[in-house]
Amino acid sequence: MSEFDLIREVFAPLTEEAPGAFSLKDDAAMINDGSLVVTKDIMIAGVHFLTKDPLDLVARKLIRVNLSDLAAKGAKPQGYFLGCVWPASIKREKIELFATGLREDQETYRCPLFGGDTTVHATKTGPLTLSATFFGAPSKSGMTMRSGAAAGDDLYVTGTIGDAGLGLRALKKEEKFTTVDKASLAGRYHLPEPRLSLGAAIAGLATASIDVSDGLIADAEHLAKASGLRAELDASAIPLSQAAGTWVGTFNDQSEAIAELASFGDDYEILFAAPPAMRRSVSVAAKAARTEVTRIGALVRGEGAVLIDSDGEAVQINAAGYDHFTR
Amino acid sequence: MSEFDLIREVFAPLTEEAPGAFSLKDDAAMINDGSLVVTKDIMIAGVHFLTKDPLDLVARKLIRVNLSDLAAKGAKPQGYFLGCVWPASIKREKIELFATGLREDQETYRCPLFGGDTTVHATKTGPLTLSATFFGAPSKSGMTMRSGAAAGDDLYVTGTIGDAGLGLRALKKEEKFTTVDKASLAGRYHLPEPRLSLGAAIAGLATASIDVSDGLIADAEHLAKASGLRAELDASAIPLSQAAGTWVGTFNDQSEAIAELASFGDDYEILFAAPPAMRRSVSVAAKAARTEVTRIGALVRGEGAVLIDSDGEAVQINAAGYDHFTR
Repeated sequence: MSEFDLIREVFAPLTEEAPGAFSLKDDAAMINDGSLVVTKDIMIAGVHFLTKDPLDLVARKLIRVNLSDLAAKGAKPQGYFLGCVWPASIKREKIELFATGLREDQETYRCPLFGGDTTVHATKTGPLTLSATFFGAPSKSGMTMRSGAAAGDDLYVTGTIGDAGLGLRALKKEEKFTTVDKASLAGRYHLPEPRLSLGAAIAGLATASIDVSDGLIADAEHLAKASGLRAELDASAIPLSQAAGTWVGTFNDQSEAIAELASFGDDYEILFAAPPAMRRSVSVAAKAARTEVTRIGALVRGEGAVLIDSDGEAVQINAAGYDHFTR
Repeated sequence: MSEFDLIREVFAPLTEEAPGAFSLKDDAAMINDGSLVVTKDIMIAGVHFLTKDPLDLVARKLIRVNLSDLAAKGAKPQGYFLGCVWPASIKREKIELFATGLREDQETYRCPLFGGDTTVHATKTGPLTLSATFFGAPSKSGMTMRSGAAAGDDLYVTGTIGDAGLGLRALKKEEKFTTVDKASLAGRYHLPEPRLSLGAAIAGLATASIDVSDGLIADAEHLAKASGLRAELDASAIPLSQAAGTWVGTFNDQSEAIAELASFGDDYEILFAAPPAMRRSVSVAAKAARTEVTRIGALVRGEGAVLIDSDGEAVQINAAGYDHFTR
């Protein structure tokens, strides 16, 4: 049972009367006659964050991963609803620390709490489970969809890829880094940066958009699939941070190392498509949003997603995105 | 640490910039310039439902407890977002059964799924955790608030009180009933009936309204507190089903038995206030909505909530509503 099959076969049929649900094929829905874009993401201790992660950082990540969805849809955040299920052993100080994190990022992103529910597991070991429903206003040109790209469109991505995944490995002591690199990479894991300005700047310009949460290659495939196309990514074009670049440099086969970075997930960058005729406009939008944007490939006829090395060969990819149901 | 202190002291300050959050003092929020009423309720296996409960009934209860909040606010349901966290051992058939229940009640209440998130606990024993965010259109007279009642207002409740609590005891084999009564009471526990028609009919008429989820007396206190008043409930007026009436008949002190029913929770009836001058209008609204409504007391100056027996004496109450943080 894959997560995607389950959504398509079991849950999507429940949205038949809700055109704004887009058959659950997008990252957000539109409600109230298209006046609001809404997204909901769950985070669970031990799955989406480390059980020992400080709760203010967990709170901020919860806000940011949801805002990342709104960013990819070009929407402006307005507020959110929060559901918390605490372990029975939770102390009030921990909940206060969590609230401190919420406040900090609410203020940064001007996105207040509107309501929710807070409750407690029946057992001391029940994992902290967080659910947030964020809503925002669509841009004037409407919600930027996951579908709608054409063969020949360029593919772009914001920021750098693979840092959060390396950060997680550093935190789990699976990889060694310099102190400086470790801090930088762990920071990317704990605190992704929702690309709200860029998402707003490319609304109406991008033909399709998705936030990179499952891994660049997996999400490129999701985006391509929504338009019935194939994504071809240029391994040498994938933007890397200095720390990730150093890590890649330790491999003999650097394309394979890049493929691994592009399979990690948790980047919360925006991957989007735009016609080649729009390259100048994309560059202007990126500058206006003060966000690094890199052209990393194109959409072509076909299906799937492939990473191509400097010899023009497809790189063998081991992991194809995170699936909660097939771990 | 009580649930209510936590909400007031830790979470309510996070809503300062969100007037539609009503400082988390109501059962729902208003968003998008008052165009939508939104509520969010969590349900956890072993806390809000029995681990062995069939998942189609759990799904329907999830829909109904959320719709009950919208009903109490006089709002018309439009759709919902769903978050599911499944135990790692979950089988696809179980998820399909859950979806069958969702479909059944979505159709009954014309309230489709718009989106959400579905994921899996890291452990086989992680309890099924469900989070739903429901939205609906406010009535023409706006959202019926929990606050706004005046001293002298009558208090009314829909349906009958205590059945769900007795049903839970029957299911847990803590109390014995006839087969017929057990089925009826368990039915009330598994499938509360959201009082949507009545909630809509009294919008603009009720001065304050709340749905009874924590127990009649506890929720009467919540409603009274929101208006700075005291609730006085007449024990002999509390509406009881035949099964609950039979149960009460087995006690020497029937007022104490009624007090217990009024402390159980899970009723999902609507408790509301209206001025005595509106008694005829309330009766007309109840008829129009084909819903039993009983006048059970009044709001007076003071604070708290009290159940008064046939001698005019306050009945001693043991339980004052369910609190997730002080069990």
